[in-house]
Amino acid sequence: MEYIYKCFDCTKIYGKDEIEKNLVYLCPACGKVEKNQPLRGVLLIEYDYKAIKTKFSKVNFFNYQLGKFWQYDFLWPLDSTKLSSLQTELEKISLPSNCFQKLKYLGKEFFVLNDTSNPTLSFKDRASSLVTIKALELGINKIAAASTGNAGSSLAGICARLGLSSTIFVPKNIPEAKRIQIQSYGAELVLVDGDYDLAFDICLEISSRKKWYNRNTAYNPLTIEGKKSAAYDIFIALKSKLPNYIFVPTGDGVILSGLYKGFIELQKLGWIEELPKLIAVQAEGGNAFARYMETKRFEYAPAVSVADSICAGAPRALYLGAKAIEKSSGEVIVVSDEEILIAQKDSAKEFGILLEPSSSATFAAYKKFTKQEKLQNKTALLLFTGNGLKDVSSLSKWNEKIIALTPEQIKEKYL
Amino acid sequence: MEYIYKCFDCTKIYGKDEIEKNLVYLCPACGKVEKNQPLRGVLLIEYDYKAIKTKFSKVNFFNYQLGKFWQYDFLWPLDSTKLSSLQTELEKISLPSNCFQKLKYLGKEFFVLNDTSNPTLSFKDRASSLVTIKALELGINKIAAASTGNAGSSLAGICARLGLSSTIFVPKNIPEAKRIQIQSYGAELVLVDGDYDLAFDICLEISSRKKWYNRNTAYNPLTIEGKKSAAYDIFIALKSKLPNYIFVPTGDGVILSGLYKGFIELQKLGWIEELPKLIAVQAEGGNAFARYMETKRFEYAPAVSVADSICAGAPRALYLGAKAIEKSSGEVIVVSDEEILIAQKDSAKEFGILLEPSSSATFAAYKKFTKQEKLQNKTALLLFTGNGLKDVSSLSKWNEKIIALTPEQIKEKYL
Repeated sequence: MEYIYKCFDCTKIYGKDEIEKNLVYLCPACGKVEKNQPLRGVLLIEYDYKAIKTKFSKVNFFNYQLGKFWQYDFLWPLDSTKLSSLQTELEKISLPSNCFQKLKYLGKEFFVLNDTSNPTLSFKDRASSLVTIKALELGINKIAAASTGNAGSSLAGICARLGLSSTIFVPKNIPEAKRIQIQSYGAELVLVDGDYDLAFDICLEISSRKKWYNRNTAYNPLTIEGKKSAAYDIFIALKSKLPNYIFVPTGDGVILSGLYKGFIELQKLGWIEELPKLIAVQAEGGNAFARYMETKRFEYAPAVSVADSICAGAPRALYLGAKAIEKSSGEVIVVSDEEILIAQKDSAKEFGILLEPSSSATFAAYKKFTKQEKLQNKTALLLFTGNGLKDVSSLSKWNEKIIALTPEQIKEKYL
Repeated sequence: MEYIYKCFDCTKIYGKDEIEKNLVYLCPACGKVEKNQPLRGVLLIEYDYKAIKTKFSKVNFFNYQLGKFWQYDFLWPLDSTKLSSLQTELEKISLPSNCFQKLKYLGKEFFVLNDTSNPTLSFKDRASSLVTIKALELGINKIAAASTGNAGSSLAGICARLGLSSTIFVPKNIPEAKRIQIQSYGAELVLVDGDYDLAFDICLEISSRKKWYNRNTAYNPLTIEGKKSAAYDIFIALKSKLPNYIFVPTGDGVILSGLYKGFIELQKLGWIEELPKLIAVQAEGGNAFARYMETKRFEYAPAVSVADSICAGAPRALYLGAKAIEKSSGEVIVVSDEEILIAQKDSAKEFGILLEPSSSATFAAYKKFTKQEKLQNKTALLLFTGNGLKDVSSLSKWNEKIIALTPEQIKEKYL
């Protein structure tokens, strides 16, 4: 399908080749990467929705299968002639089709889009998939990314599945388990003597000079584009009855932006009327969106929380994410580390689903909403974005060692 | 569907209620649990295959979906009238339908049944599912198991999904990460001051006295029965073209036994002619099957290997597993810890799939076969049974720490 790139900030429009063939990512007119600042000039992809409407109907769309989003190639920025020759590759990176679940809490049903069984056990695979397929299309076999963990291991894992090579730039304080995940997939790991910002900058510089493809989140427009697949999967699973609220773990704001873009597209196609309210869930120690929504001014503050995957001092997609909250009549909910860990525990025990803290944050926020009775007569969907086994250290915080008992002691206790 | 229980050793036959309602697991006539010995009197479930043949065809069977094995309830020991009211529960424990994959190694294609994205990220979920559904059917809400790790976390996770409670008996030297997984799901954990054998015995005694349902592997016939689902999934995925070889990680011999039973059933139904050759893959440090197949005499030896999930000094299902190897014209392949870790590394880098050592053992064995040219003009399928993130410590063995570099050092290195 035909598409163009449009700048979120200055609304300038660019042709596909102008951007992709030249490995341009941000708006050539106003794009900016600044230290400890959200990105400026993020590019968004736009399709010819009128033309699509004449060819595809909502009913066609509902026939697609969850987790295999490449099926509806008219909504992806890919060359469909090349895509048809990539079927084996696409199979290798398909997501499980049982990702949509109904759960119950305090007698009330809610929905979950569960990405914890994805190829690398996180939601990031949605973005990595699209980026890697684009790299294959462009004939580039090396992809780089800056990451604090999940995005890096996702890119590394998806690249390994497709026979591409990856170089991941990480800050030196990366958690041990996440470093090991990235390395295991055979990625070249560059440990940067500094923070995520520095890793981001040096990754841009090296990949630009070496003509590697770059997957830095929010920076490469295809990261937002890949994440919009979640909106489609929700739409397919629930048909026209979209949830009133969607709880979105929010650090850089890219999932938020992707979901918003997906729903806006469905609206442009005339397939949905109203957008679900997008609830950005943040940790107390990384609440940049909460602060921005109040003052409409961004101020940098270092972010620290047990939910490391949603810790962003300077959310890269702040402005687009903020628009997603506003236009969907959503809001920001901030949860404490304690609430996050309790929700992690409750989710494991109640639903049998192990979540990373960044992911159980959505359940913590949902619980707050339930208390405030905001959900009366409303439906809600939670994104479960990362498997708890990606961060066993967080699970160990509430699972204490116990004492070994002899058979006699055990019998005394139980019989 | 109607079914009976038949003793593997003395061939005595028992009615369904006689066994199930009385919480009997081994043959009442000859069943024996002895220290450091394989079980005697393992019961196998038999159906009325002639009756099934008149009602279901191979073509019906091929219409079933991978990972949702409850669909073909005529081959499960369940009350189908009750099963239909459990649809919500069954959805919660369904396996991903993208478990069947084609991979390539040294230019040659092979198949994989990939259970690393299951609800608790291991193959054990196949057995836990059947056991928990039976518990629901029997109206028992407490299930116990002895485990060295995966079986316990699987039972705990599946129980949490279904609102059942579980008590897991583990030996005191259980790896830290596996202990945490079991506890996280809200299972009651009993740390036994002794080895797996002692945990097995005390678990039997307590659960029998407390009338809990018991999921000890091989002991509860439904553990073998649940694992036979893998044979069906392979059959559905490959239709009539079954692989010549199937590589099976082998500790207690229950996966081996389950696969064998599944294929034998398909043969009894007249849907397949020949059985795939079952290759039991063992670690050098836990090679009870290899020794038994040579001498036909069992001798206990303690088992230690990096592949802890296939370490069994006294394989509980030794005799049935040995029959599976023999009758399928299979064999035992022993791989070293070094080969297992290299295979773990290669699988991550080549296929983007993180495996536990017990699971990468199958790939190590496959590589040996390739070297010996045993696979010329033959097809093979490997079971990938456990996700690498269940045991990050094994991954850390070959992913060394690296040194942090300044931007200047990075530029010098790459530009």
